[in-house]
Amino acid sequence: MKFQFVYTGIRVRDLEQSIRFYTEVLGLRLVKRAEEPVNKGEYALVEDEETGQALELNWYSADSPVAKPYPDQEGEELDHLGFEVADLEATLAYLRERGFAPVLGPNVDGGFAVAYIRDPDGIWVECFQRLTSGQR
Amino acid sequence: MKFQFVYTGIRVRDLEQSIRFYTEVLGLRLVKRAEEPVNKGEYALVEDEETGQALELNWYSADSPVAKPYPDQEGEELDHLGFEVADLEATLAYLRERGFAPVLGPNVDGGFAVAYIRDPDGIWVECFQRLTSGQR
Repeated sequence: MKFQFVYTGIRVRDLEQSIRFYTEVLGLRLVKRAEEPVNKGEYALVEDEETGQALELNWYSADSPVAKPYPDQEGEELDHLGFEVADLEATLAYLRERGFAPVLGPNVDGGFAVAYIRDPDGIWVECFQRLTSGQR
Repeated sequence: MKFQFVYTGIRVRDLEQSIRFYTEVLGLRLVKRAEEPVNKGEYALVEDEETGQALELNWYSADSPVAKPYPDQEGEELDHLGFEVADLEATLAYLRERGFAPVLGPNVDGGFAVAYIRDPDGIWVECFQRLTSGQR
């Protein structure tokens, strides 16, 4: 039986704000945006053109049949999103200027310098710089 | 500033069980498995060789500095993982035989036949069959 894994979907509270964050701050490309009448929602697909990784941003209206309260704490099933960067220190300065200060790190962990920020919904976003030729 | 989006990380409660599900049931390839002493945890990277989508499965011990109680309900930030299939009816029969009955659907939504199962941690996994030449 063949399954093609084509994207990860996350739930967002403000679709405009999330599209801006993932495209303007993190540089993903907006591939598609569409309303989803069945779910009384709207979604956007963003992807990294180089790696092909795709993320679906899902927003639901309060009266959507699939909407549930958004937890105040971070969702523990969604551990984090992973982004590789060339220069962690410069990246953290860039993010801090835009209001995204690290919530953990920077730390050196194995062959990586690693820090985490939180996206507009509180989702953890890992930025890591490869310090050696090791594979992640 | 360049960010490379390289994987999505989810938290799992039993790493063996999750690796089996994502590799044996859904056919992803195990790329790497490693202990993470700093976090008192262990992780595995699985990916779809064809689409390049990658998923990191993160397990933490109870005394890990980053472990938190795993919510009983599904995590709302992680909406779902998306898998395209050729034949939804055959796919659902295959999944049902392995103990994964649909929790929603199958339904027809736009140009897609869609159903959801839950992975071993309760994370929603969407299976969709393209019914027309429309793009998702």
